[in-house]
Amino acid sequence: MSLGVGIIGAGTVGSGVIEILAESAASIRERTGVPVELVHVADTQPAALETPGLGNVRASLDAEALLSDPDVDIVCELIGGIEPAKTFILNALKAGKNVVTANKMLLAYHGPELCKAAADNGAELRYEAAVGGGIPIIKSLREGLAANTIKSVYGILNGTCNYILTRMTHEDRELEEVLKQAQELGFAETPPDLDVEGHDTMHKCQIIASLCCSTEVDPADIPVEGITHITRADIVYASEMGYVIKLLAIVRNVDGEVEAQVRPTLVPEEHLLASVRNEFNAVYVDSEHTGPTLYYGKGAGQMPTASAVVADIIDIGLRGEASALPPFIYGPRRKVRDEDQLEGRYYIRLTTKDQPGVLGQVCTVLGNHGVSIASCIQHERHVNDAVHVVLMTHETKQGGLTAALREINSLPFITKPSHRMPVL
Amino acid sequence: MSLGVGIIGAGTVGSGVIEILAESAASIRERTGVPVELVHVADTQPAALETPGLGNVRASLDAEALLSDPDVDIVCELIGGIEPAKTFILNALKAGKNVVTANKMLLAYHGPELCKAAADNGAELRYEAAVGGGIPIIKSLREGLAANTIKSVYGILNGTCNYILTRMTHEDRELEEVLKQAQELGFAETPPDLDVEGHDTMHKCQIIASLCCSTEVDPADIPVEGITHITRADIVYASEMGYVIKLLAIVRNVDGEVEAQVRPTLVPEEHLLASVRNEFNAVYVDSEHTGPTLYYGKGAGQMPTASAVVADIIDIGLRGEASALPPFIYGPRRKVRDEDQLEGRYYIRLTTKDQPGVLGQVCTVLGNHGVSIASCIQHERHVNDAVHVVLMTHETKQGGLTAALREINSLPFITKPSHRMPVL
Repeated sequence: MSLGVGIIGAGTVGSGVIEILAESAASIRERTGVPVELVHVADTQPAALETPGLGNVRASLDAEALLSDPDVDIVCELIGGIEPAKTFILNALKAGKNVVTANKMLLAYHGPELCKAAADNGAELRYEAAVGGGIPIIKSLREGLAANTIKSVYGILNGTCNYILTRMTHEDRELEEVLKQAQELGFAETPPDLDVEGHDTMHKCQIIASLCCSTEVDPADIPVEGITHITRADIVYASEMGYVIKLLAIVRNVDGEVEAQVRPTLVPEEHLLASVRNEFNAVYVDSEHTGPTLYYGKGAGQMPTASAVVADIIDIGLRGEASALPPFIYGPRRKVRDEDQLEGRYYIRLTTKDQPGVLGQVCTVLGNHGVSIASCIQHERHVNDAVHVVLMTHETKQGGLTAALREINSLPFITKPSHRMPVL
Repeated sequence: MSLGVGIIGAGTVGSGVIEILAESAASIRERTGVPVELVHVADTQPAALETPGLGNVRASLDAEALLSDPDVDIVCELIGGIEPAKTFILNALKAGKNVVTANKMLLAYHGPELCKAAADNGAELRYEAAVGGGIPIIKSLREGLAANTIKSVYGILNGTCNYILTRMTHEDRELEEVLKQAQELGFAETPPDLDVEGHDTMHKCQIIASLCCSTEVDPADIPVEGITHITRADIVYASEMGYVIKLLAIVRNVDGEVEAQVRPTLVPEEHLLASVRNEFNAVYVDSEHTGPTLYYGKGAGQMPTASAVVADIIDIGLRGEASALPPFIYGPRRKVRDEDQLEGRYYIRLTTKDQPGVLGQVCTVLGNHGVSIASCIQHERHVNDAVHVVLMTHETKQGGLTAALREINSLPFITKPSHRMPVL
């Protein structure tokens, strides 16, 4: 008696899963008791089906052949994107097969529909690999912290962005240059938009928010800001004030509402998240009884991601005859807090002509919108005939700040749009 | 239909579990679907049975009454120590009840016997709270990383020791003084031996070694060194070389043997473990496919520990009718590597009279035992008419170093026993 695994998509992650199952099926059985066995692989590219380790495994160019294979108990969807991944998963669930996926984009946009299909057919839908790669963060949130209400989650969830920000911080280089190198090294996709514009982080943020707040979250409700406008100057100013800039997915359970956003954020240097460097990911969770916990590891890459897929397979095997667990448990629909209602401290960088009265006028506008200033940096050095004015606010509402910045940007001495980042 | 929970021991952790179940049973049911219900509490102290939240729950002064209560599906053993905890757990398992325990000492000394009793009776024995308090480290090692062979684990597993070392590092104070303050603040037990002598860390090390190396590990085979001989001077020398001193449980899978030891260790300042401060715990795991991961949180305290106990209860509930998982899966018995065979770099501190030829003679002895020196610190300042000579070795076998230090300690100019710490 074995647990038959089928893999749709023998690309990077798929071939990693094939490698683990080919090499370690015996040791996994010994360590966990689960008789996992790769029985079928499907890929539209004939070359992908020549992956080493396939041996006697059935190979199909057509995923439907795999989905109708009675020896396949668990379908791993590893092609990514919305279609045809969604159709494959729905068909697998309808056939009563369990599904493991690494597809964060699909979950973010169609989680509730997939969840319903799983429930209707008594099948499992697992997605550990979709967030944090090799870090068992979904398991930790769902099971390890099951006794707790999750109060907040701060996640570094995109290795490419963290690599770029780390290199900018440690090597005095601008984003374009580091990004180009990252692409050459294979750490960043071409085009890099899904990563550097923050969308990949948003998909993961949506999954964490749905899971931790037990509610359906519309991805369109999550404000997203990537890292493309971060300059070396911002990193230096942040450092002068004792902070490091990280792209964070921020999720909070607040007063019956859900706070969910993706933002470059100033993280205090002594915070553990500030020490998470290069392509590593980490998730900082504050929960009701346990207090702060942190989970760190490789958030992407072939083998870490494949390891998470195989962990899900083993988990399904260990559950044996137990009734299927729902991928998400949705309670009543809760509102994602409007951006303008978010509260916190903010970093503001203005680019302005060097003339008298600037700081006074800026502070007046901020004050009119209820934003008060905690500290200020202005150096004598000029940047293309302009100077930077960097302000750190006290606790304030984002709405007031946004309105103030709109007004400030129209002042005659402001030479470039201002921008702001929240502070952790 | 509910899942009946019985608690033996309504002390600190027990009353934390009572609090969570009393306040959160409904929200746990909503979030996880598990109908957990506290039905029985036993404690030898009548006062302990007046804990708030007990309401209609049955209360017994005698644990046997709880063990024979047919409404109790899961027994939580929260009294600690070897007996009567062991008898209670064995009786519960024999009655086919599932058991959740936080008892690391009992697991370290009697794990295999308890494991056999669980298997013989088809019952679960869970122990997430025994290691790392609120950090879901057992779950991460057993399930999250199930696709991997674990290569090594480095754990800061005793909050008291980490608190003391952190305060010594940041406040220029000696151990006795910090310990006294920690005792006053309730962070350290009186007497503190189980913590500061390293035994508590050893118990956890034994559990991790058994789990990660799939073998029975005799606790007597684990070399243990506590922190009592660490001085402020060691901390300063380590810092000059770029290291922080942490008490680590070290487990490694090497060449078919198990390496398991508890040692104050020099951790490089840029390593994440170096940033784990005060009473926090962290476990750094290097695994086959996932690479390095780290898990951080509160390793002790009422609510974090209670949260881990409740997570185990929920997990058993989620498994429903699935067959019980063994607490450990033991493969063939493997040898714990002899201390003398351990390899690595070492920090050595000698206390010697300030006279010519000392360094030459010391280095000759070390060289005769195959130990070569990478760097050296000797300051002009005197300590009670003697000077410290601090040496950092290249990679070496511990056996040679131990023999060399024995010889060095008998040299006439050495005024105090020398000591050494491994380097991570």
